[in-house]
Amino acid sequence: MDEFDLIHSITPRTIHHFSVDVGIGDDAALYTAKHGVQEIVCVDTLVEDVHFKLHYSSPEDIGYKALAVNISDVAAMGGIPKFYLVSLAIPSKWTKSEIKEMYEGMNELAKLYHMDLIGGDTVSTADKLVVTVTVIGEVEKGQACLRSLAKPNDIVFVTGEIGSSAAGLSLLLGETHPQSAFVETDYFIHRHKRPEPRVSVGRLCSSFKRASLNDISDGLASELNEIAEASCVSIEIDDGMLPVHSDLHKLDSAWKEWALFGGEDFELTGTVSGADWEVLKQECEMRQLPITKIGHVREKTESNVILKTDKTSMTLEKKGYNHFK
Amino acid sequence: MDEFDLIHSITPRTIHHFSVDVGIGDDAALYTAKHGVQEIVCVDTLVEDVHFKLHYSSPEDIGYKALAVNISDVAAMGGIPKFYLVSLAIPSKWTKSEIKEMYEGMNELAKLYHMDLIGGDTVSTADKLVVTVTVIGEVEKGQACLRSLAKPNDIVFVTGEIGSSAAGLSLLLGETHPQSAFVETDYFIHRHKRPEPRVSVGRLCSSFKRASLNDISDGLASELNEIAEASCVSIEIDDGMLPVHSDLHKLDSAWKEWALFGGEDFELTGTVSGADWEVLKQECEMRQLPITKIGHVREKTESNVILKTDKTSMTLEKKGYNHFK
Repeated sequence: MDEFDLIHSITPRTIHHFSVDVGIGDDAALYTAKHGVQEIVCVDTLVEDVHFKLHYSSPEDIGYKALAVNISDVAAMGGIPKFYLVSLAIPSKWTKSEIKEMYEGMNELAKLYHMDLIGGDTVSTADKLVVTVTVIGEVEKGQACLRSLAKPNDIVFVTGEIGSSAAGLSLLLGETHPQSAFVETDYFIHRHKRPEPRVSVGRLCSSFKRASLNDISDGLASELNEIAEASCVSIEIDDGMLPVHSDLHKLDSAWKEWALFGGEDFELTGTVSGADWEVLKQECEMRQLPITKIGHVREKTESNVILKTDKTSMTLEKKGYNHFK
Repeated sequence: MDEFDLIHSITPRTIHHFSVDVGIGDDAALYTAKHGVQEIVCVDTLVEDVHFKLHYSSPEDIGYKALAVNISDVAAMGGIPKFYLVSLAIPSKWTKSEIKEMYEGMNELAKLYHMDLIGGDTVSTADKLVVTVTVIGEVEKGQACLRSLAKPNDIVFVTGEIGSSAAGLSLLLGETHPQSAFVETDYFIHRHKRPEPRVSVGRLCSSFKRASLNDISDGLASELNEIAEASCVSIEIDDGMLPVHSDLHKLDSAWKEWALFGGEDFELTGTVSGADWEVLKQECEMRQLPITKIGHVREKTESNVILKTDKTSMTLEKKGYNHFK
């Protein structure tokens, strides 16, 4: 495979942002930043056999997800994704058309957000495919939804439903066998392979004076712990309010673990004031964006995150439960 | 190794740029871009056993070079490097202290340029280390040194000396055995492991109304071909003017191939007008920055790049010679 041919074949024919001055084809990309905005930049890497396996993910799926997880980080800052760069370490067994398919998977999502591919690098590697995507976005100055912005009495919310991606992965790995033939397993698998970044909800949150946000890459428990730590508060969530797919419990008795610790849902979780919650809920309803109140922010206690059930309270660590001492 | 510990241990204690609003520790980094500048962004990946081998490169060397090759891309745009993000795919055999050493190698160079580490990702991989660095820089609006800016009658120049890095690699791989014990092989090896990006010369070039620039990653012949193609001109260089180390020819009869096609020197090559060349030469002399005139830009002919010796002229392809038909 000739790298120059490949670069030519993946170079976009259209540019969405007029602020791109030089895209692919020089030493680096150049763009002009606007006044009154903050630039957002993030990078995430997916590795073959760690984050995906070739026997169940197509090149398009891999490309799609590699970009999606980065867009999700921008969404979790309340920002608009604008540009992306792709760095690939490719084993020799990959064909040129498979690599093109991977870029097509990214492009499918990029078109949705009017994002421009502005650079990257392509190198060879001996064994496993490594895909690193850098995304640049922007947010109005002072409006970023930082982890450190939660305050006592805030409402805690989560978008969409949680646990579906972990269920999909478990199905793909053959670890879960649905107990009923009437469960649509394809749905869960799709949620794992093609997560939908929640840019619109992030944008709604950034319109408030203050909102904290995280995207769910490592599991709800982990993300809420990060918000609680960064904000020096405690977060109390209600076990009965967690939004999960109505078929999730039919798949495996481990469904609650998927919801709390599974990760890779790429939904958003965060906090806003009580007054802003009413606005956010209404705006999301109007746009048919699913969002659910799951708890409250409290003054800091010994536990960062507390899960309340009908009868008990327990500390929710990043990766597991912990009963109170 | 705990990723959270690692992130904590590599999080910089000082910030050079006040425009960094959020560095490591949220979903993405945030910074405020200034008016009147263009942002530059580039990404490069180094892979174990493709770009370096662990038996001759230390973790510091690998970190240093991974950042250096990206700074070099910013230099080749005439820009100032400002921020970097690091994405690592790490095999389990690597220890936490080796990973810290890799970041220290980057930090050594970052300090020199007052660059801030603002984000990244750390994932595991089965086999080979993959290091991807994203660098963000800036250049005054309209002053970037693009490949497409060469014009007939421009002077063609190169900084430092070429071929030394390829010689160092050949020594490291045991392919070259110096014919004289008086040759300082360590020098060439150092040039391969720790290339020095030429940011100062890039900045001088960006002060002119127009300059074309490329950094020498793939070899002088390849970089000049890119400038000639992008600018629709031909470039004529003089075989006798190529700056090489005085000991290079003592190492191997292949020294001329190293100089023309070896690559990884991370010197700059480019073109400026005759009048600007006099200024550039003088400014470089004052700052003890080595720079050499190696030829001229001509109106476009059939050959993109022509190498003239005393007796012959030949076409210099990206990866080899071609005698005129």
